[in-house]
Amino acid sequence: MPTFAKLAQQYSRALLDDVIPFWMRHSADREHGGYFTCLARDGSVYDTDKFLWLQARQVWTFSMLCNRLTKRDEWLQFARQGAEFLARHGRDGEGDWYFSLTRDGRPLVQPYNIFSDCFAAMAFSQYALAAKDEPAREIAGRTYRNILRRKDQPKGRYTKAVPGTRPMVSLALPMILANLTLELEWLLEPAVFNQAVDTCLKEVFTLFLDEKTQVLREQVAPDGSHLDCFEGRVLNPGHGIEAMWFIMDIAERRNDRSLMERAVDIVLQTLELGWDKQLGGIFYFLDAQGHPPQQLEWDQKLWWVHIETLVALLKGYGLTGRKTCWTWFERVHEYTWKHFPDPKYGEWFGYLNRSGEVLLPLKGGKWKGCFHIPRGLYLCMRELEKLAAASADRQAVRQPGAWPAGKKSTGGLSRKKKGQS
Amino acid sequence: MPTFAKLAQQYSRALLDDVIPFWMRHSADREHGGYFTCLARDGSVYDTDKFLWLQARQVWTFSMLCNRLTKRDEWLQFARQGAEFLARHGRDGEGDWYFSLTRDGRPLVQPYNIFSDCFAAMAFSQYALAAKDEPAREIAGRTYRNILRRKDQPKGRYTKAVPGTRPMVSLALPMILANLTLELEWLLEPAVFNQAVDTCLKEVFTLFLDEKTQVLREQVAPDGSHLDCFEGRVLNPGHGIEAMWFIMDIAERRNDRSLMERAVDIVLQTLELGWDKQLGGIFYFLDAQGHPPQQLEWDQKLWWVHIETLVALLKGYGLTGRKTCWTWFERVHEYTWKHFPDPKYGEWFGYLNRSGEVLLPLKGGKWKGCFHIPRGLYLCMRELEKLAAASADRQAVRQPGAWPAGKKSTGGLSRKKKGQS
Repeated sequence: MPTFAKLAQQYSRALLDDVIPFWMRHSADREHGGYFTCLARDGSVYDTDKFLWLQARQVWTFSMLCNRLTKRDEWLQFARQGAEFLARHGRDGEGDWYFSLTRDGRPLVQPYNIFSDCFAAMAFSQYALAAKDEPAREIAGRTYRNILRRKDQPKGRYTKAVPGTRPMVSLALPMILANLTLELEWLLEPAVFNQAVDTCLKEVFTLFLDEKTQVLREQVAPDGSHLDCFEGRVLNPGHGIEAMWFIMDIAERRNDRSLMERAVDIVLQTLELGWDKQLGGIFYFLDAQGHPPQQLEWDQKLWWVHIETLVALLKGYGLTGRKTCWTWFERVHEYTWKHFPDPKYGEWFGYLNRSGEVLLPLKGGKWKGCFHIPRGLYLCMRELEKLAAASADRQAVRQPGAWPAGKKSTGGLSRKKKGQS
Repeated sequence: MPTFAKLAQQYSRALLDDVIPFWMRHSADREHGGYFTCLARDGSVYDTDKFLWLQARQVWTFSMLCNRLTKRDEWLQFARQGAEFLARHGRDGEGDWYFSLTRDGRPLVQPYNIFSDCFAAMAFSQYALAAKDEPAREIAGRTYRNILRRKDQPKGRYTKAVPGTRPMVSLALPMILANLTLELEWLLEPAVFNQAVDTCLKEVFTLFLDEKTQVLREQVAPDGSHLDCFEGRVLNPGHGIEAMWFIMDIAERRNDRSLMERAVDIVLQTLELGWDKQLGGIFYFLDAQGHPPQQLEWDQKLWWVHIETLVALLKGYGLTGRKTCWTWFERVHEYTWKHFPDPKYGEWFGYLNRSGEVLLPLKGGKWKGCFHIPRGLYLCMRELEKLAAASADRQAVRQPGAWPAGKKSTGGLSRKKKGQS
């Protein structure tokens, strides 16, 4: 394995010389604003519909790079082009965010999906910081309050569940709220921030964590008990692992060592379960009892699952120094770099079949946009830079990130945060 | 290739010695009524939820066998056990059919899906005939009228589309109405029957058929124009082929030779497009313009696609005598029998990956039940028996099903229908 510094360079180059230029080259809709996200292998546009998740996430990515890496004018311009389109066309009369729009911004699919609102809040928060834009800050704050108001009935009138028969809650919402709340900390009252984080932590660990297996369930009964039905049995390893790096961020923010160790335990358990021991890569869906999952795509290998796992393993290693994190990082890194990047046209493939062959050659679509790969590359780069610096500092005397005896040491959790990463 | 008679025996044995006994052995819920449809490879029950589509389709299958093959008491009993469960628990206050119920019949998912109603109408119509049950006939008639009332807004209040932006109609509804109307002919006024069939034919051919490619679209604008979006570009070869044997039934019923030839043309064109020339089998989804489809399962090989294609090819061959139908039948027959039947535990696998390996070992689930395989085996058996009989009668002087010069000859379309198949 190359040194930390060499690895940091690998992630940095992929981000800055490949992925970001690819999206800048191909995704701008200069006529109507916003972005094209449906990009074929060579970057050509094959569909012009605008999906709120992906528009917002791309605004977030370019704003985040301005805020955390370098304030480049072209990045800020690129973020603005999405933010203005979204501010103009993205919401219905109640301030809820549509799911999709036509190319010119007419609403196609109703705001049935609260995650559109979550990604919009993230986008406008980062953009407000990058552009010092007060209206954007207001949109972020209003959307966040709207999410908290809607969160107990996230599907609203679009829910198909008959009330009362089998009440069910989903990991997705507390998981994304954990990340969103950290993202929006700068514009929230400290009391609101702390309460939101406490609620997320409580829900994730008391409701969704299966104590026996140490793996997260995707859906449980409101009291945390397991439901023996398709939705209750489904496991989504990538989702669980991504949730855990959100929790690691909270653990680092709160300097909470036991929370960090717990998150790392769950990541490692989830990988043990989710890794395809026969053909490599991480499965998309599994059934907690080993029954056939209802998702026909269960055995596919997806871009976001792998890059989010790399982030979680590097954060886990950097903050706890546990060897197992590094061993797994090496394994997942090797699989990921061998299968996902496209050597011919740049950027990464999104969907591989179980054997690791390209299933869909797209670079972007209805669900894959300019988000997980650049975010993951950026975060891995940062973690690797910290490891490289720590390794140089310590001259191999201490393990990177090994927990100090005292709670307020300079190593481990209490290390200086750089650029909010 | 074996003789017609030998082939008929192969389909008949699979139906009567394997598939039907498998479902009788494993799927009865003796405690609460209705059926278990989530059956593992060995037939063991892994989930007890009751999905309306599958409950109704199983009632239909056992009732149909009583009506068209032999009136066996155990089959009628088995049909009754589903019909009574559905009559008791299946509908909401407005007579709309839920999408799913708990094992003991409490409603889980609202009646957002009009196909639940379609399959319920088919089920109660066949069951009413088999059991000479007047209340069942009433349920079938009322449900059918309900479907006609709802058909222009099939998702009702559950629709997520913003009205007006991109109006879209789906092939699925006229397609199933074509089949349903033939099924229910015995209890409909002739005027209602004829009008419903005319409407289906008009919609299928003027709206959904792409004249240029001679392949059906799944979704189009209300004026039949093509929509350049994921839903507008998607092709579902199995669906198009199944629709065409419904149309062949209408052509046979109406003694309409040109309609029959047209349906056969579409089946053959769809196969040319949908057949996996590299690995064999028929793809699940394709994009009309060759773009990446949004369905991640696009390259999988599904049980219903293959058995419905066998039905369409045999009907097409029997009724037009076109050689290409037989050549394709041989190819699809070979693929199907090599990959789908489970030699160890019986019944057929449902989901194969592109290479033809088993993707999910289930025999039944949320979508696969006791329906396509037994219906298809039964229909193929009948077509093959007719071909065997014709072949014996004609002593190889005429091609089977070759069109006579006159319209009212005894060959081809106007052949005697047996048992309503």
